[in-house]
Amino acid sequence: MVETRQVINFSEKLSKITDLWQPRIIAEMNDYQFKVVRIEGDFIWHDHPETDEAFIVLSGQLRIDFHDRAVSIGPGEMFVVPKGVEHKTFAEREVHLLLIEPRGVLNTGNAGGDRTAQNDIWV
Amino acid sequence: MVETRQVINFSEKLSKITDLWQPRIIAEMNDYQFKVVRIEGDFIWHDHPETDEAFIVLSGQLRIDFHDRAVSIGPGEMFVVPKGVEHKTFAEREVHLLLIEPRGVLNTGNAGGDRTAQNDIWV
Repeated sequence: MVETRQVINFSEKLSKITDLWQPRIIAEMNDYQFKVVRIEGDFIWHDHPETDEAFIVLSGQLRIDFHDRAVSIGPGEMFVVPKGVEHKTFAEREVHLLLIEPRGVLNTGNAGGDRTAQNDIWV
Repeated sequence: MVETRQVINFSEKLSKITDLWQPRIIAEMNDYQFKVVRIEGDFIWHDHPETDEAFIVLSGQLRIDFHDRAVSIGPGEMFVVPKGVEHKTFAEREVHLLLIEPRGVLNTGNAGGDRTAQNDIWV
């Protein structure tokens, strides 16, 4: 089998994204996807009843609020939000994230609403 | 549900690993695992017949050889080796990697032999 995939540079992909809170697919591994996203400000409370969700911070400082605590995640750090656990992301200044989750996951999970982004756009 | 997982710092985890070519689990997402590994020098040709394998370079410059080409992956970059594609990793100087793959994958895939590391050790 000939291998034709390309090396993926996170900064180069992020430079092509203009909108905040719009995850863009950069790679697939089996039925999982890697997505980059630029965020700033507050998101909405939601959970993903069917899957864990992994966050890797590429730049900036991310806060994830849970109902009983909050975690702060910086560059070179990661966090896995367990399935079914309600959470809310927050970034005081712009944060660049790498998300890893199964294909088809919506950013707003079970909550829906007008913050829901398209979940099938590659960059 | 109370969320008790911790923020994972890649450098802090890598600082606890002394041996080269020994992937250590740092997190799980559903039935997938995140592993960090320190490598230097040449690995062996192998493939993973059952799964893709994602590489994210944390430091250093990684080369992955395929039979028809090679790719060079630096910090802030990633690459997904498709399932069933034979490959060989190489690092002229020490490289720190983050691997993402399903639980239970062996570093030597289908090849086996004395470079096979234990695949169930956390750090």
